[in-house]
Amino acid sequence: MEETVTTPGGIVTEEVYSGPVDASRLGMPGEYPFTRGPYPSMYRRRLWTMRQYAGFGTAETSNQRFHALLAAGQTGLSVAFDLPTQMGLDSDHPLARGEVGRVGVAIDTLGDMHRLLGGLPLGEVSTSMTINATAPILLLLYELVAEAQGVRSHQLRGTVQNDILKEYIARGTYIYPPGPSMRLVTDLISYASRHLPLWNPISVSGYHIREAGATAPEELAFTIANGAAYVRAAIRAGLAVDDFAARISFFWNSHSHLFEEAAKFRAARRVWARLMKEVFGARTPASLRMRFHAQTAGSSLTAHQPENNIVRTTVQALAAVLGGTQSLHTNGFDEALSLPTEHSATLALRTQQILAHESGTTDTVDPLAGSYYVEALTDALEEEANRLLEEIEARGGAVQAVEWMQSRIEESAYRTARRIEDGSTTVVGVNRYRDDDSPEPAISRTDPALERSQQERLALHRAERDQTAVDGSLQTLGRTARGEENLMYPMREALAAGATLGEVSGVLREAFGVHRPGS
Amino acid sequence: MEETVTTPGGIVTEEVYSGPVDASRLGMPGEYPFTRGPYPSMYRRRLWTMRQYAGFGTAETSNQRFHALLAAGQTGLSVAFDLPTQMGLDSDHPLARGEVGRVGVAIDTLGDMHRLLGGLPLGEVSTSMTINATAPILLLLYELVAEAQGVRSHQLRGTVQNDILKEYIARGTYIYPPGPSMRLVTDLISYASRHLPLWNPISVSGYHIREAGATAPEELAFTIANGAAYVRAAIRAGLAVDDFAARISFFWNSHSHLFEEAAKFRAARRVWARLMKEVFGARTPASLRMRFHAQTAGSSLTAHQPENNIVRTTVQALAAVLGGTQSLHTNGFDEALSLPTEHSATLALRTQQILAHESGTTDTVDPLAGSYYVEALTDALEEEANRLLEEIEARGGAVQAVEWMQSRIEESAYRTARRIEDGSTTVVGVNRYRDDDSPEPAISRTDPALERSQQERLALHRAERDQTAVDGSLQTLGRTARGEENLMYPMREALAAGATLGEVSGVLREAFGVHRPGS
Repeated sequence: MEETVTTPGGIVTEEVYSGPVDASRLGMPGEYPFTRGPYPSMYRRRLWTMRQYAGFGTAETSNQRFHALLAAGQTGLSVAFDLPTQMGLDSDHPLARGEVGRVGVAIDTLGDMHRLLGGLPLGEVSTSMTINATAPILLLLYELVAEAQGVRSHQLRGTVQNDILKEYIARGTYIYPPGPSMRLVTDLISYASRHLPLWNPISVSGYHIREAGATAPEELAFTIANGAAYVRAAIRAGLAVDDFAARISFFWNSHSHLFEEAAKFRAARRVWARLMKEVFGARTPASLRMRFHAQTAGSSLTAHQPENNIVRTTVQALAAVLGGTQSLHTNGFDEALSLPTEHSATLALRTQQILAHESGTTDTVDPLAGSYYVEALTDALEEEANRLLEEIEARGGAVQAVEWMQSRIEESAYRTARRIEDGSTTVVGVNRYRDDDSPEPAISRTDPALERSQQERLALHRAERDQTAVDGSLQTLGRTARGEENLMYPMREALAAGATLGEVSGVLREAFGVHRPGS
Repeated sequence: MEETVTTPGGIVTEEVYSGPVDASRLGMPGEYPFTRGPYPSMYRRRLWTMRQYAGFGTAETSNQRFHALLAAGQTGLSVAFDLPTQMGLDSDHPLARGEVGRVGVAIDTLGDMHRLLGGLPLGEVSTSMTINATAPILLLLYELVAEAQGVRSHQLRGTVQNDILKEYIARGTYIYPPGPSMRLVTDLISYASRHLPLWNPISVSGYHIREAGATAPEELAFTIANGAAYVRAAIRAGLAVDDFAARISFFWNSHSHLFEEAAKFRAARRVWARLMKEVFGARTPASLRMRFHAQTAGSSLTAHQPENNIVRTTVQALAAVLGGTQSLHTNGFDEALSLPTEHSATLALRTQQILAHESGTTDTVDPLAGSYYVEALTDALEEEANRLLEEIEARGGAVQAVEWMQSRIEESAYRTARRIEDGSTTVVGVNRYRDDDSPEPAISRTDPALERSQQERLALHRAERDQTAVDGSLQTLGRTARGEENLMYPMREALAAGATLGEVSGVLREAFGVHRPGS
């Protein structure tokens, strides 16, 4: 008997697909339901943004890397922050020890942000910031720096991740309980819709859900469920859906199964468009069309035979391009061993450039459209995502279904691990075609001197600022937190006055409490 | 005004394709006209053969590399011969100096062939030999070694390139004038159809035509025109088309334009099937279905930023897989600098393994089928190839059109070079996104000791053999060459008696003369 073939996402795959395809389900590119892409001309008119996530150490070292990446042909910036910055802790906090500048850049003050962005053309580049619980702080610091550089807020283009739900589900850098966290999300969306019309105030992220072990259909459904929760919260906070929906962006993982992934992106646009139209009553086309960033799958990279990862990343990047991504990060091949070096980061960017300029994949819009197989996969992924979305709705929505989603992800991760262990899933160089090489995982080292100098700079900042102004602004922030007004305005005052990221977060911690898992 | 986009092959590309597709032009996989593949189940039933071209130095060093490649998971062998072996010169010939064992292995005698194949399971692996003017000699040596190992001829699987027309057109390792060369080709086909039924007695090769600068449609048309010339010659020599057509195989280049290349493979099958059926009257399905080997594009590799070539090779390999190749060679990333090292050769093989086992591209047959774009490209390539084939026919066929094809290829190569020079074609790391790296092209060194020891071994062989038997067999070969009988039988006698490759070729040179370009 013929063995059943399924995708990693569990979709049973026929030996031969031969159509026919119902073209009416597709629509044209740039038209509802946007299966074929959010824009009519796609890469014929404008390539995706090549946006490599980078940042480490001090603001100065990250600033240098950004200048180097722009010089190498990168077309957008993407900032990684260290864990203390993500968790709202200053660099001199006891819990920050050993983590300052380790997985990203350390930002405590407006001065740090000035150093991070020095000399960068903020009126021209778009900047993505991977930041969630402290997203309002980093966005405001960015805006303040731009103002000082003479760039007006309505010119600023970029994204803050600002997706707290997936932090509870999969990533872990939350601070406050869900209620106040959702308030911060909607306050930021509301603020941005007024002052930063070209900014994406949220990037609803499937990336980390997938990295944690979810399948492609789960990534699709859980992420879109989170997106729906934000839309619902914003509407509840008094915003009109067509006033903010167009600025919601998404962030997907791009894994190795070329066609399941490409189909996933196409299905994602269709599911979102239908949801926005039919459930939330959005009317303008821009509210219905999903735009997204994609990153190749970090979890697919192997420490063994690390150059195999160049091959994997190429296939994954291709899937994102064939799926119509708006921007793309390609991983460095050595990331299973350490933070990417400048060499591997450049090669990762070259991977995108070769796809963009040599592979012909930009010659026409949605080149896979009509493929019997890809359209069948797209339909199947859409169907499975809708089924999971209904299960989440039946639990009361994404905020209530966090634990259910977590347990689904754990089960999927376990199944994948077992399939690799028993050899039914091949990972080249790991459970098959191994060499005798034993890679030495480079321990990602922190530089104690870096931590010390960042702390010294912070101490100097505290000594030189107008403490009375800081204290007053923090008190105002605390009062607002206990009330219902938008928190962005007092937060902005406090940061401009010289309050640190840790101090602003501390005031909110006091007002909101902190979240404990399982509570 | 919108800029016109064309493929590298000159096909004007629409911004959006939206069908409909005439499914009747496709047929099902394994069915005429074989657009969707030569077999019904393709990689669901059996992966392509991973066949890395290798060979250098002495028979012993090449033998070691073959054992290593089989241990690393390669599933077929592919032998590279040095230039003297390709040109019918023994290692002690004055013109061989500096070339012995340089671009492949040196084979002078049956003893060398025994050492080359020692310990390899000739009854199980399939072996491809890139050899043309001296193809009969190498095939006979292979058969003699197998017999000595107890493996019978009808079990042997493999390919000799044996495509002399593309040597005149593009590659240059011809010896005799076209007339006797075509006789050797058909003698080999005839011999193999009787004694080696599983052997592919010819691999009609577009690879070198493309490397020389032809476009995809030219590669398609010129190669198929050569194939038609061989079929015509074999029929003229008295063979029935259905007795040999099923064993004709092809060898294509796989370049970087993912979809043009994938479509090229699909179009190739359709053009060939129609030609065999409608022009040559072949009747059995096996005579109509094109099977082929593919190799990624050596000419696309850059000496600058050599790791970019891993990305290029991945895309090119993917094109071959999506196009339904039966076997594949992936180039090492350092081949623009030197012969591949064991490291780069292994990584090239890993590239295939990742595509086979991680990318999902083997899950279903002909995954691109139905794609509005890919089907339009397939149609356009078929049409352009047929147009060029008619031009060749109007010139009297491939043998007569050699110079016309050469001039077309030169024009195409010139156009490509100009586009790279003026920047309208981007080559990442070469005319855009350059670094300051200046690669040091490693001079491919010959080992003088290797040459000397090969010559000493040859001298010993000459001293020890039965010279009378050799002389007699070579005289018989010379007489046959001046007559019309099949040359394979006296050649086999001579080789078995101990005649060398150079001596056998020398007798034929005397009988046939040598070809001078332009004559």
